[in-house]
Amino acid sequence: MSIKVAVIGMGQMGTHHANNYRKIPQVELYACCEWNDKRRAEVAEEYGCKVFKDYKECLADPEIDAVSIVLPDNMHREAVEYAVKYGKHILLEKPLAKELEDGKALYELTKDYDKVFTVGFLLRYDYRFAAIKEALEKKELGDIIHIYARRNSPIVGPRRYIGASDLSMHVMIHDIDYINWFMGCKPVSVFAKGRSVLLAEHNMKDVIYAIVTYENGAIANLEACWVLPENSPTIIDDRCEIVTTNGVAYVEPCDKGIKFVTPQKILYPDSRHWNYVNGLPQGDLSEEIMGFINCVANGKKPVVNVGEAYLALQVVDAIERSMKEGKEVTL
Amino acid sequence: MSIKVAVIGMGQMGTHHANNYRKIPQVELYACCEWNDKRRAEVAEEYGCKVFKDYKECLADPEIDAVSIVLPDNMHREAVEYAVKYGKHILLEKPLAKELEDGKALYELTKDYDKVFTVGFLLRYDYRFAAIKEALEKKELGDIIHIYARRNSPIVGPRRYIGASDLSMHVMIHDIDYINWFMGCKPVSVFAKGRSVLLAEHNMKDVIYAIVTYENGAIANLEACWVLPENSPTIIDDRCEIVTTNGVAYVEPCDKGIKFVTPQKILYPDSRHWNYVNGLPQGDLSEEIMGFINCVANGKKPVVNVGEAYLALQVVDAIERSMKEGKEVTL
Amino acid sequence: MSIKVAVIGMGQMGTHHANNYRKIPQVELYACCEWNDKRRAEVAEEYGCKVFKDYKECLADPEIDAVSIVLPDNMHREAVEYAVKYGKHILLEKPLAKELEDGKALYELTKDYDKVFTVGFLLRYDYRFAAIKEALEKKELGDIIHIYARRNSPIVGPRRYIGASDLSMHVMIHDIDYINWFMGCKPVSVFAKGRSVLLAEHNMKDVIYAIVTYENGAIANLEACWVLPENSPTIIDDRCEIVTTNGVAYVEPCDKGIKFVTPQKILYPDSRHWNYVNGLPQGDLSEEIMGFINCVANGKKPVVNVGEAYLALQVVDAIERSMKEGKEVTL
Amino acid sequence: MSIKVAVIGMGQMGTHHANNYRKIPQVELYACCEWNDKRRAEVAEEYGCKVFKDYKECLADPEIDAVSIVLPDNMHREAVEYAVKYGKHILLEKPLAKELEDGKALYELTKDYDKVFTVGFLLRYDYRFAAIKEALEKKELGDIIHIYARRNSPIVGPRRYIGASDLSMHVMIHDIDYINWFMGCKPVSVFAKGRSVLLAEHNMKDVIYAIVTYENGAIANLEACWVLPENSPTIIDDRCEIVTTNGVAYVEPCDKGIKFVTPQKILYPDSRHWNYVNGLPQGDLSEEIMGFINCVANGKKPVVNVGEAYLALQVVDAIERSMKEGKEVTL
Repeated sequence: MSIKVAVIGMGQMGTHHANNYRKIPQVELYACCEWNDKRRAEVAEEYGCKVFKDYKECLADPEIDAVSIVLPDNMHREAVEYAVKYGKHILLEKPLAKELEDGKALYELTKDYDKVFTVGFLLRYDYRFAAIKEALEKKELGDIIHIYARRNSPIVGPRRYIGASDLSMHVMIHDIDYINWFMGCKPVSVFAKGRSVLLAEHNMKDVIYAIVTYENGAIANLEACWVLPENSPTIIDDRCEIVTTNGVAYVEPCDKGIKFVTPQKILYPDSRHWNYVNGLPQGDLSEEIMGFINCVANGKKPVVNVGEAYLALQVVDAIERSMKEGKEVTL
Repeated sequence: MSIKVAVIGMGQMGTHHANNYRKIPQVELYACCEWNDKRRAEVAEEYGCKVFKDYKECLADPEIDAVSIVLPDNMHREAVEYAVKYGKHILLEKPLAKELEDGKALYELTKDYDKVFTVGFLLRYDYRFAAIKEALEKKELGDIIHIYARRNSPIVGPRRYIGASDLSMHVMIHDIDYINWFMGCKPVSVFAKGRSVLLAEHNMKDVIYAIVTYENGAIANLEACWVLPENSPTIIDDRCEIVTTNGVAYVEPCDKGIKFVTPQKILYPDSRHWNYVNGLPQGDLSEEIMGFINCVANGKKPVVNVGEAYLALQVVDAIERSMKEGKEVTL
Repeated sequence: MSIKVAVIGMGQMGTHHANNYRKIPQVELYACCEWNDKRRAEVAEEYGCKVFKDYKECLADPEIDAVSIVLPDNMHREAVEYAVKYGKHILLEKPLAKELEDGKALYELTKDYDKVFTVGFLLRYDYRFAAIKEALEKKELGDIIHIYARRNSPIVGPRRYIGASDLSMHVMIHDIDYINWFMGCKPVSVFAKGRSVLLAEHNMKDVIYAIVTYENGAIANLEACWVLPENSPTIIDDRCEIVTTNGVAYVEPCDKGIKFVTPQKILYPDSRHWNYVNGLPQGDLSEEIMGFINCVANGKKPVVNVGEAYLALQVVDAIERSMKEGKEVTL
Repeated sequence: MSIKVAVIGMGQMGTHHANNYRKIPQVELYACCEWNDKRRAEVAEEYGCKVFKDYKECLADPEIDAVSIVLPDNMHREAVEYAVKYGKHILLEKPLAKELEDGKALYELTKDYDKVFTVGFLLRYDYRFAAIKEALEKKELGDIIHIYARRNSPIVGPRRYIGASDLSMHVMIHDIDYINWFMGCKPVSVFAKGRSVLLAEHNMKDVIYAIVTYENGAIANLEACWVLPENSPTIIDDRCEIVTTNGVAYVEPCDKGIKFVTPQKILYPDSRHWNYVNGLPQGDLSEEIMGFINCVANGKKPVVNVGEAYLALQVVDAIERSMKEGKEVTL
């Protein structure tokens, strides 16, 4: 019997979710929900599934077993509350919520939920980061001394998110999450420094550096910048270095694999996160969605739990506080 | 309703196949077939499925819908003949056959087969190569001028294959297949040169260079070597450069992504072909198997057809002839 | 007429200096000075030049035109004072001095010196960094938004420097200097965080992160760590990223160029700083010494002046203060 | 006493030579020779040295000790004959000559010459290749099994050389020379295949592949292509892989070190061959010229002798013959 799935929010990311569900044999993409009339009509045409304008109606449909919620951050809380009310299995795109208090509320609401609830930190499914976690657990790497993590990208991104999200919440949170996961203990203090230059008119940060100290004494230094030139051949310059008492590991950017140089463009496509082969999605997001469906099918615990998603949000909050107060803050 | 699958041959590669089937929701790994008693007992324990010693018995089981055949090259012909006799969907690990005449027989047998028959050239599912094929088809790249392809690896590999397979058939055939696919026309002549030094005692080649000329005039230069040192941090040094009348594309090795340096070892794991995350397989092989299952479920044509698999075999044959005769040969 | 040169201090670095002088036609390596009797005897044998035990005697020799001072940091002040007293052209290995007050004294002493006085920040002669400086000056790059700089290396280094130097002064000062040079304005505040783990018993830092803010608002994030594993194939993992209002530039590590993988070792030699070809030195240090000799020969101003060397020392001091006080400090 | 030097031919490469001589203390750039009146006037202005229109007059000037000959290939023979007649030390830009018979004549003329005669194969001074040669000699690497070498570049190059030089002679000869040097034995046979596509109208090759077999049985596979797109960020994509019975070594391209991405251009400058810092040349060519001057000053043997230069020419000739005859040829 098929698992019936709905995708709530058919923007860029929601579309990737839908494409992934469509790829899994015997998962049925039962419905998509999209507020914008034009896009909703396209979706109906393209996917041949039921469409909804109002996500509440969609979530109320008893046929649906599982949902991807891919809405703007400030709508996460309410959408999850409805999905829980109707007993759906839930894959919520990161972050948990836009405001810390909403995150706390969702944490309380879902921590003992008897269906699957997970948050889409797709790097947990990325081989590069998963291999480090495994080496830490197997003690092939030793205790962490320090970590450097970068996640930089062209200015085309933030121009799409004006007013909707900022750099710490949208970008750096990925690294916060996997570093929390690597550390296996709580972050205790944060010093962060940011600058607004090219994005100053939109009241957004160009760059943030955050130094996070953990209970075990280890230091993480995070860099996020989203003002690289538009013609940057690299779409996401993501790097990580993790120095331990027994050796070091390095993550190299997601653009390694394939490079194109033509008179029209120089492009090193992202070959990790959501690349397409023969029209079908591959990569981290596919693995995340396959992981979610396997949890639904087999009743397994998801890789990312709500406590972790809430902790990442707390670090984002501390970064913003530190930048505002101009000093190191505690969590 | 589940698709019931069997894996014929539970060596290293067959085990990857089994792990992949186990990962797909609602595919049932129904049976495994393994000649070696000890390994068969392990498989029974590990996978909790039916086990067979004799693949003919296994293929005769009417419950089975689809099979992966992962046997030594010289057993491919007979195994496929039985699988066809019993009407199974078939995923055959590359190459098509050990001998050209067996390949021809299988081509004749399966070219009009009404079930799925495909051969496991997993690079067809590799984003790096698929992205080039797509760019060629979209005319983002122009006409091919020449291609260089490398596939080098440590000496641990051939030591496992002594007597069973040689370098052109086991390794270079991957590059032959995707280059044929890129070219979209027939190879017409081959000059190849090889050497036996470290593997001379086993009558195997250390290295082969082959220059293949195609109908369209384009030249491909292939390098395969499997005598890199055992401690080589790179497991497969696979590269490709494709120069066209409208720009160039580069494939970088499968080890880009993650590097470990510890006092015990320096290792850059393969992050493309069959890497595991949380015990579950990812990468090209997973996509190949998902592709096979989707063909079975939806009745679609497989990405690799038998004619292509046979053509790759013809090029391997020409390479061997050229090395034997010491001159350029025609196909 | 030859320029007569002496090298004061024939340790590892002094030996590189001597080898470089020996390579320049018509420069005469006139004398070497070395406290250790055994090493002094070797030097006499190897270089066939005059040798001194006491550097004061050496500096008093009127035949000598120019000297390289390559002594422990805490001896820099006195040695420079003598060299100035005897009117020598001086190339002092970095840093200017061990203590800030000694640095200030040397700054006062030499700022109007009528001979050449320069400090050996060899990255000023490194094409990678010089190309960025040039692109900044030509406005090919825009205003600096932020800079990330890394300089990490295996634990073999600090084990040689126990008690003599620490990480900020010995390593990070290189990046401080070229970042000051890039910025073209004063650093105003510093937040630094360090850790002592593997080097805790020696009271040395394993790692330091420093966030330096400049008058122009730009942020620099510096990482230095010298506890990578001994078998690290990379000797210096030095990287720099500089994001500007008109594009970005990246410096890649000094080990790019050549890699060896043998059963005995995996080594990616430093191909930038002081590599040898046919027994003769090349690279940044050679260029630095050639630059010094050209200043001596032609009366040109050196690339690095004492004010810059003193400023780098002030930033090192601020880094140490910030780590001690646990908060951001001002310069 | 200064060494007085003249540069014969002040095109792009001759200008690099002149800049290098000017950089060496106590070498005097005494004269430049340039046929083109406009360029000669510029040179007089820029370098403030004597200028000649006719190189024979220049070579007849008794003040000149040493000359760089940087003329078109077909003028090499006569120019060297004059330089020998007047007893100059000679640095001849590669190749030895355009025609094999001219090369033979120069070999006979200079093999016992009592002044310095050397040919400018600058990769002999390149750390990347020199480090391999040293590792071979020290037996850190074992016996060579095979070598792959690439030297590819954008189409801007050949458009400058129309009619003057072709790919094997201008480009591939660099790799031929260092591979001969690595092998330490004679090349015995060559199979080469080339194509003319984008350069067909100029009767020049776009790409050549050559498989050279040596007396010791080792195989070298050389690739040269100079039709990469004009906007290729990499100026020379030069790679080498050398597999031996004791490990492998890899040369990475000369563009590693610094990358620029701006809205105007994406450029990874060559940081090896003739890069400039503060207006002064560095890199392989500087080392070559310093090496030449040191031979002149100290009477040492040059690194490249005429026998080696002639051997490289013989391999070029064999490559051309193989392409013409469509089969493997012997030397």
